[in-house]
Amino acid sequence: MTTLADVAKEAGVSVMSASNVLRGKPNVSASIRERVLAAATKLDYRANMAAKSLRSGRSGIIALCVPRLDMPFNAAFAAAATSAAEEHGVRVMVQQTLSDPERELEILRGATASLVDGTIVSAVGASAREIEDAASSHAVVLYDERIQNTQLDLISSPNQAGGRAAVEHLITKGCRRIAVLGTHSAPHGRAGADGQDLRWAGALSAAEDNPQVDLTPIPCAWDCEPAYAAMLSALAVGTPVDGIFAMTDSVALGAIRALSDRDLRCPEDVRIIGFDGIREGAISVPSLSTVDIGITQLARTAVDMLLTRIEAPASELPGRRFTPAYTLIERESSR
Amino acid sequence: MTTLADVAKEAGVSVMSASNVLRGKPNVSASIRERVLAAATKLDYRANMAAKSLRSGRSGIIALCVPRLDMPFNAAFAAAATSAAEEHGVRVMVQQTLSDPERELEILRGATASLVDGTIVSAVGASAREIEDAASSHAVVLYDERIQNTQLDLISSPNQAGGRAAVEHLITKGCRRIAVLGTHSAPHGRAGADGQDLRWAGALSAAEDNPQVDLTPIPCAWDCEPAYAAMLSALAVGTPVDGIFAMTDSVALGAIRALSDRDLRCPEDVRIIGFDGIREGAISVPSLSTVDIGITQLARTAVDMLLTRIEAPASELPGRRFTPAYTLIERESSR
Repeated sequence: MTTLADVAKEAGVSVMSASNVLRGKPNVSASIRERVLAAATKLDYRANMAAKSLRSGRSGIIALCVPRLDMPFNAAFAAAATSAAEEHGVRVMVQQTLSDPERELEILRGATASLVDGTIVSAVGASAREIEDAASSHAVVLYDERIQNTQLDLISSPNQAGGRAAVEHLITKGCRRIAVLGTHSAPHGRAGADGQDLRWAGALSAAEDNPQVDLTPIPCAWDCEPAYAAMLSALAVGTPVDGIFAMTDSVALGAIRALSDRDLRCPEDVRIIGFDGIREGAISVPSLSTVDIGITQLARTAVDMLLTRIEAPASELPGRRFTPAYTLIERESSR
Repeated sequence: MTTLADVAKEAGVSVMSASNVLRGKPNVSASIRERVLAAATKLDYRANMAAKSLRSGRSGIIALCVPRLDMPFNAAFAAAATSAAEEHGVRVMVQQTLSDPERELEILRGATASLVDGTIVSAVGASAREIEDAASSHAVVLYDERIQNTQLDLISSPNQAGGRAAVEHLITKGCRRIAVLGTHSAPHGRAGADGQDLRWAGALSAAEDNPQVDLTPIPCAWDCEPAYAAMLSALAVGTPVDGIFAMTDSVALGAIRALSDRDLRCPEDVRIIGFDGIREGAISVPSLSTVDIGITQLARTAVDMLLTRIEAPASELPGRRFTPAYTLIERESSR
């Protein structure tokens, strides 16, 4: 599909300039207007989605709800979604929900939804049913780790497979007493489970295939400070550990800090692997091994799904499911 | 001033519930409605800004433009601004501009501005004059490191004083060959300068007072990957260095990684201090000394300034200037 970026490149102008011309904005020079229109004609740009949106009088804005703007994973997802949407001449407005169902539903019911063409809701607190009701005819893509019975478009991380791969990696490296950092207080893997349950279930399946391995769940919220505190506590009570599967990269960075406080070397004394593939993990000391789920491509997929959904109601296009592949990246922390 | 959070607390409900009641949303239970209205009356909440906004038919949404959503400083600022605004029942929509003047002006001129009550524009690419023209009657607060001749409300970081304090700290610790990482290619300190120039000017003033100190500018963009690459290059050509003032904390984290690659110990071989006070610096290995400018309070101030500005046009309230104080935090990286 021809994107606005293609038109801009062909015309030798910025994407914003191309967007301004095609949206009929004033204050564009005649020369730029001419080049953009020529490029759009040459590439048959009018046939595509952005042009359709123009004709339908849409706002050209989509919303993205993330739990916390200051979580590196959310931040990376939001930045990548913004870049992906801009290629279609669509702007992204990002809002923070703290995974609070009330905030999520308020956004979908309230003023925000009426201002935008559709919404990507990431890491959801409300149930899919509540979101379906709140969104009604509003186009929505969910990025939700929970197993959900929904007709909405749904993106999930490769939680179980990724959790298994992480622990298998540590076992291959010789780890036998493996802590899983970031579980629920009572981890389980039954249906209806969320990301914490599913990553634990994956980890558990790897351990069950390797009876020489002890697996210890260490509960904490998925952020670096709680992970740091939880890991310090676990070390203080003498939890034996030579490997840590941290359920997110932020959790892993907190664990690395805790090891440093206790003069434990990573990877010599304790190996660590995270999950997500945030860029901070490539620059940390030690650099962080991770189950990389390709955040940039994932955000791009979410935007593409939403832009398609804006054009096609559920009656024409049934709800889709997407789970990205992962790549296990070995860096210093588990060498 | 009584905030929505005060009302919610008094009523024993969430801020969102209180907001829903006061905005006349349906689907609120009679009991909650009664408690919120009683609390609002008791605290004289109607007299305040949010209530005024209600009567004036505003959207209750403000926009925040940041250069990059995935920069920890921007992310922390956005998260804190969102929390601060919510206390007034106002939602924040965050957009990424890549500091591109075209994007900034598009946001201020375009659909977004008509949807929101006002906009905080952080780390500006466009000139204040261009922004004044684009915004016209739209309420705007600039967070801009450049010295600007403008009537707009303007927030700046303590660039020069903070840069000086950082280098003085390194000198006190015994550093004599100090690299300043994150300068322009040709750093200068003249009027019209931006944050890079001003932090360099502050660093230079500290060095000039200490003639035994050599100061070397190392140019790079303000992000961890370019800082990592620039620092590696500087070390490769044998730049003598026993101290680094990194112009942002993200730059500092890149420098720490570069030292690790070259088997240089921090702080034993090279001391480092950053600038900003992002939370990632408290959890890194080594933990990062920094010129902490109080991001949370800064975001709160920006929101307060904007909410006041929405109520008061320039004719009633002249443009204000604000620069936060800083706190020098010593952690492992410069001990």
